[in-house]
Amino acid sequence: MKQNIYDDQRFFAKYSSMDRSRKGLAGAGEWHELKKLLPPFQDKRVLDLGCGFGWHCRYAIEQGAHSVVGLDISQRMLSEARSKTTSTRIQYLCMPIEECDFPEDSFDVVISSLALHYVHSFEDVVKAISKCLVPCGDFVFSVEHPIFTAQGSQDWHYDHDGTILHWPVDRYFTEGVRTATFLGEKITKYHSTLGTYINTLLKAGFDLTALVEPQPEETMLRTIPGMEDELRRPMMLLLSATKRC
Amino acid sequence: MKQNIYDDQRFFAKYSSMDRSRKGLAGAGEWHELKKLLPPFQDKRVLDLGCGFGWHCRYAIEQGAHSVVGLDISQRMLSEARSKTTSTRIQYLCMPIEECDFPEDSFDVVISSLALHYVHSFEDVVKAISKCLVPCGDFVFSVEHPIFTAQGSQDWHYDHDGTILHWPVDRYFTEGVRTATFLGEKITKYHSTLGTYINTLLKAGFDLTALVEPQPEETMLRTIPGMEDELRRPMMLLLSATKRC
Repeated sequence: MKQNIYDDQRFFAKYSSMDRSRKGLAGAGEWHELKKLLPPFQDKRVLDLGCGFGWHCRYAIEQGAHSVVGLDISQRMLSEARSKTTSTRIQYLCMPIEECDFPEDSFDVVISSLALHYVHSFEDVVKAISKCLVPCGDFVFSVEHPIFTAQGSQDWHYDHDGTILHWPVDRYFTEGVRTATFLGEKITKYHSTLGTYINTLLKAGFDLTALVEPQPEETMLRTIPGMEDELRRPMMLLLSATKRC
Repeated sequence: MKQNIYDDQRFFAKYSSMDRSRKGLAGAGEWHELKKLLPPFQDKRVLDLGCGFGWHCRYAIEQGAHSVVGLDISQRMLSEARSKTTSTRIQYLCMPIEECDFPEDSFDVVISSLALHYVHSFEDVVKAISKCLVPCGDFVFSVEHPIFTAQGSQDWHYDHDGTILHWPVDRYFTEGVRTATFLGEKITKYHSTLGTYINTLLKAGFDLTALVEPQPEETMLRTIPGMEDELRRPMMLLLSATKRC
């Protein structure tokens, strides 16, 4: 059973009120870094795995993409995505990422934003991506950082007064299911080690082109309370890779 | 001032009694993984940065290397290395890693074991390595993992009874000096983020070929008390890279 908490009405309402949902890419703390890793989209056929509200799909079209397929498991997310979309060059498909199985050479670029840590087997997804991507094609994605997912609670360790002491890491080499609290709801994610992310890509025929652990932008650091704590541990991992030519 | 605690008599005595000093490679918990990353040494010219007692230098010669330069800042370490060495194809040089400046194409392989986290600028060292390495040459090294070095104390977080709770991560994005306790002595190390390690290599003209976070071998897990705690957080990072041809 593929997880689909985003179709839960209460969770969806909370998710919809987040900055990254309301403001789109400008409200996503890692966008300033992810943007730099994206290849030129001009005339490219793009696949977005876990497209959510479709912000990245529309960005690719704005940048001249030939066509975009946005894939997500959540009907609610896709309804919202469709309502925000005017371009006929974007096709939204309701499907679990795990079942993505496009023909060879279907896409020039595959992107995925904060979705692959919901997937049980990163390796299986990477194989499917490698298959549908043209040689020399680009794969750029973000996931929650292994430091962030390892222990499982996804919360700081505090002292008796509620002051943050540090970020707890535990169970690092025990890959698999973690039940974290996100927006007040229990949610299942999967922890993979850094070694798994990188070596799965290398073994599947990709060259790594960049690894970024995004820090908040200067303006966010100055204006959003508590944002400086984001310098104490990495929350996200951004990777870009090219399928060997 | 380059750090050289290994020439401190008391520290050196303690270091000399560690398994990895007495037993050599067989006593190093990560050797079973590092060994797999090493390229064939047959007829290769090898540089070992921070060679210590010279175990890796002698291993390269055993594997048929043409010649090996072992470089270390510590005279005591090099004396010990020389006393253990019979091959005339190994040359030991007493020099800080930071001052390594060999001519272009001097080496086919550069290795470094648990030494580069003592160096202020990883970037400067990588530039020097890239210079002296032939195109398509291999660079394989281990460092303490950024998860291990970030907070600085290099110790677990315990409860009131002295039971391990988890590994503390803090100050992740604050790169630079950390003063840790190692063998009961204060020692200066440098914390770099994972992003810095990887992107410095990529930007200096290397392709990443593997990233390994070694776990203890099965026999060590079974026979050495407390070794299972090593599964709770990664201690080391092993990277192999090839200079683009």
